[in-house]
Amino acid sequence: MSARGVSEAAVGIFDSGVGGLTVLKQVARRLPGEHLVYLGDTARVPYGTKSPDTVIRYARACAAKLSGCGIKLLVVACNTASAFALDTLRAELPVPVVGVVEPGAREAVARTRSRRVGVIGTSGTVASGAYTRAIAALDPDIRVFARACPLFVPLAEDGLVSGPIPRAVAEKYLAVFRRRAVDTLVLGCTHYPLLRGAVAAAVGPGVRLVDSARETAKAVERELVQRGMLRDGGGPAVRRFLVSDGPGAFARTGARFLGKPLRNVEWIDV
Amino acid sequence: MSARGVSEAAVGIFDSGVGGLTVLKQVARRLPGEHLVYLGDTARVPYGTKSPDTVIRYARACAAKLSGCGIKLLVVACNTASAFALDTLRAELPVPVVGVVEPGAREAVARTRSRRVGVIGTSGTVASGAYTRAIAALDPDIRVFARACPLFVPLAEDGLVSGPIPRAVAEKYLAVFRRRAVDTLVLGCTHYPLLRGAVAAAVGPGVRLVDSARETAKAVERELVQRGMLRDGGGPAVRRFLVSDGPGAFARTGARFLGKPLRNVEWIDV
Repeated sequence: MSARGVSEAAVGIFDSGVGGLTVLKQVARRLPGEHLVYLGDTARVPYGTKSPDTVIRYARACAAKLSGCGIKLLVVACNTASAFALDTLRAELPVPVVGVVEPGAREAVARTRSRRVGVIGTSGTVASGAYTRAIAALDPDIRVFARACPLFVPLAEDGLVSGPIPRAVAEKYLAVFRRRAVDTLVLGCTHYPLLRGAVAAAVGPGVRLVDSARETAKAVERELVQRGMLRDGGGPAVRRFLVSDGPGAFARTGARFLGKPLRNVEWIDV
Repeated sequence: MSARGVSEAAVGIFDSGVGGLTVLKQVARRLPGEHLVYLGDTARVPYGTKSPDTVIRYARACAAKLSGCGIKLLVVACNTASAFALDTLRAELPVPVVGVVEPGAREAVARTRSRRVGVIGTSGTVASGAYTRAIAALDPDIRVFARACPLFVPLAEDGLVSGPIPRAVAEKYLAVFRRRAVDTLVLGCTHYPLLRGAVAAAVGPGVRLVDSARETAKAVERELVQRGMLRDGGGPAVRRFLVSDGPGAFARTGARFLGKPLRNVEWIDV
């Protein structure tokens, strides 16, 4: 492909389901001229409770589908897939691959003053130790405390993001971080920004919340700039959404994540 | 196969994951001499949030795997799969197929005095209207009120079955049944018996809770007796567990559902 041809290609973004739309939203905000193609593996969601082998298998299938769309860069918007499958995907794909763990870790390291950082995520992400390793690689003196929050995804998907139930669940999961005196907490799952209010109330006002989505968008921009692959205009940017389960349900839940209606949702077999 | 050969074959039971073990437990209690082979599609769990097309596709794949084990009867232990896929499976399989919806509906009809019955289940089960139709087929004068309880499955899987959080969630979902004055409530999801305490507290002491698992075991016995396919001894009954994701996690969560440790858990590709 010519350099111009590569620039014109879309950025591919995949997630286990609808949560990665929080990443797409930040990429679209930061790089409004880029074509984006999103794949949500909604037939097999969630990944966060599943084994590394299964997550790697599914991540490879999703990456292969997006590669078939001729993307110029792949964003692994799912924390669990980033935690388990990033090395595999980087080794196998011909395009650059950006995960959400490294950007979130980098931001946490930049923000902490006390050098005590908390990380919350799915059971898979926390069990993988990916954030702990990524933070240690940047600054081995930072202490990292990680906690799985398995009910946060169902709460966010059910739209139950404020009121006494999410507050009680957040208190149950997050009280430990007050005792650990962290000053920074990584929201290590794409669904968690929807619960930001309940999380902030549980950890207290002194704790900065790091949202991987925003940092990931910065990493995507950096990667495209460095490789001279930014799209330079020529018609409006196109957004496509591919899902492995029903497009209708995805469009409905997705609108809550994106903050606006979704069009161009197509079913595919992953 | 000879009649003796058929009797010696196992009863196959499948579910989207671990929840169907509540059905296996009742079948094992009622028919302790039967060989049982259980398939949990743990790599693609849950089914309850997914579309009919996807659930039917997965149910056919699970049924095909169990058919390959030479079963004499198939139990669809998942309410969502029973709601969406039972007709398809009955049309396609050479063995009798028992679902969980009909037995639960029959029991509710037998128990209600006020002829006002509540049903709780996954989003898929409730949207399918399967319980409402099954109850109407038995007694069209009974009024059925159905409500999806999407957080009950994650609560049960996380082991969060008592205390203020499940009580608050149950109150949120089930207060409507007090206003509807039902006297019988069908627990239309295999996970819900684990939350029996919270459910009972929310609906009040006057409401009978119908657990499909027990009724399904009776239906399995009836079917085997009618067809002369009960196993008549000859060595101990064997229990096998097949899962599409990691056997270790299944054995751990499964022990909570079964009330005892699980052995013979094998991975298979569904």
